[in-house]
Amino acid sequence: MSFDKAFQKKIALVEQGIADYLRDSSPQEQELSQAVAWALSGGGKRVRPVLTLAFVELFGAADSAMPFALAVELIHSYSLVHDDLPCMDNADTRRGKPSVHKQFGETIALLTGDILLTDAFGMLTAAPLPANAIVSACQILAESSGARGGMISGQVFEWLCEKAGNVSDEDLQKVCEGKTAALLEAACMLGVLAGGGDDELLLLAKTYARGIGLAFQMVDDIFDLEEDKAAGRSTFATLWGIEKTRRAAHELTAQALKALDVFKGDKSFLAGLAQWLLSRDS
Amino acid sequence: MSFDKAFQKKIALVEQGIADYLRDSSPQEQELSQAVAWALSGGGKRVRPVLTLAFVELFGAADSAMPFALAVELIHSYSLVHDDLPCMDNADTRRGKPSVHKQFGETIALLTGDILLTDAFGMLTAAPLPANAIVSACQILAESSGARGGMISGQVFEWLCEKAGNVSDEDLQKVCEGKTAALLEAACMLGVLAGGGDDELLLLAKTYARGIGLAFQMVDDIFDLEEDKAAGRSTFATLWGIEKTRRAAHELTAQALKALDVFKGDKSFLAGLAQWLLSRDS
Repeated sequence: MSFDKAFQKKIALVEQGIADYLRDSSPQEQELSQAVAWALSGGGKRVRPVLTLAFVELFGAADSAMPFALAVELIHSYSLVHDDLPCMDNADTRRGKPSVHKQFGETIALLTGDILLTDAFGMLTAAPLPANAIVSACQILAESSGARGGMISGQVFEWLCEKAGNVSDEDLQKVCEGKTAALLEAACMLGVLAGGGDDELLLLAKTYARGIGLAFQMVDDIFDLEEDKAAGRSTFATLWGIEKTRRAAHELTAQALKALDVFKGDKSFLAGLAQWLLSRDS
Repeated sequence: MSFDKAFQKKIALVEQGIADYLRDSSPQEQELSQAVAWALSGGGKRVRPVLTLAFVELFGAADSAMPFALAVELIHSYSLVHDDLPCMDNADTRRGKPSVHKQFGETIALLTGDILLTDAFGMLTAAPLPANAIVSACQILAESSGARGGMISGQVFEWLCEKAGNVSDEDLQKVCEGKTAALLEAACMLGVLAGGGDDELLLLAKTYARGIGLAFQMVDDIFDLEEDKAAGRSTFATLWGIEKTRRAAHELTAQALKALDVFKGDKSFLAGLAQWLLSRDS
């Protein structure tokens, strides 16, 4: 199967999982239910849950990992809803349509984020997997989403850097590791957990995720600079220039690919995904 | 030991647990760390975690339940922080001091709530208990906090009732079951889970919690009416009058006490707590 076809197939599986969640687990109140559906729709490439499914596939049975994959996507979606709120980025739109608070008001948007975050952890317990794996998944997901090196650390650190004005390489890397890499790491590690992989494989999955996460951000920063969208912000590309940033992204992608070596099974999709993130058009 | 002394002792255990959490698991960023401590301090009677500890005591070893008890308190605290936000109740104070967003700003308050909610689920995994018990705790906590009969349902339903203006007995009960009873139920059930209790005991703990939760709300509503603080709001006391509300609170407390019958061990503290909630002065 070509990479594109395999990608589309996995995206379709995730979309089906999200549709099932919305059908079975939607809030009782209609407005809230619509807001949760809004937050989860129009969802781009679903890279995080696709990564979970791709990693568990290296071990065989993929169905058992769907609750883990969806949990990661719920966390990602909650973070976007809360990030868009007026007290954070105050974003009126998200992927070309009104953000949740623009469409449903701030109260519903706040609660929608809270629901998605809560349901992410509830979702983990639905996985038809050994209890030990679910407990480990819960721990990894909480850490990667939290305020000690996780997603919230990245958000608050970015916010503090913006207030302070002066941003170093290390600052940028810390923001990116928190905001982007941490949840990608959880996505990959949860796939390995669902597949029954050991600690060595968990660590390698984390290395892969970190590599593609940082590379992804660097490629983004290059686009923003080329398209004049980096106005006033410090990014890898504004700090390093385009050539150095591009070299760093290639180096990180190479590290990610190398981390796949020890895994058995067909790694072509994961290798393809790392390449795709590096060379995508926008 | 007198009820008061036993209560104080359990509160002190919870305070110690919270201090340990703040020392070991605080966010890396100082402002966020201070806001989390602020949200968790000055904490009243810590009824929810005390209930978790009281239930596990019926089975023996209590230490193992501390992470479960703290997880419930983190959920409770997150709900207060987000509830106080301008887009929700817009409350400037909480227990006589500035609310988190008044003290630290809305951005930090939003993230503080998100951290507490995230850490609650991470905290569960620290319990030295069988993985099965942790997975069940995660499921119960997510349900009781969520939007299908849980805490968020209660919040959003109350908000919808206030918008609509017209509130029935059933509406009030639904709000109270969500906002107040659901998390108390989780607190009690997590104690039973930590003690290794079976499904029958889990259900009885839930019945006890529902009884004391609704009775607690009714007693509160009586105070508010007597002190003229119910202005414009529909409460059990404004709908039913004081006498009928008091009778209902007594009846619910009797149901709660009855639910304790099947438990072995010393139930005097849990009985005392139900009585205390019914007859407290304010």
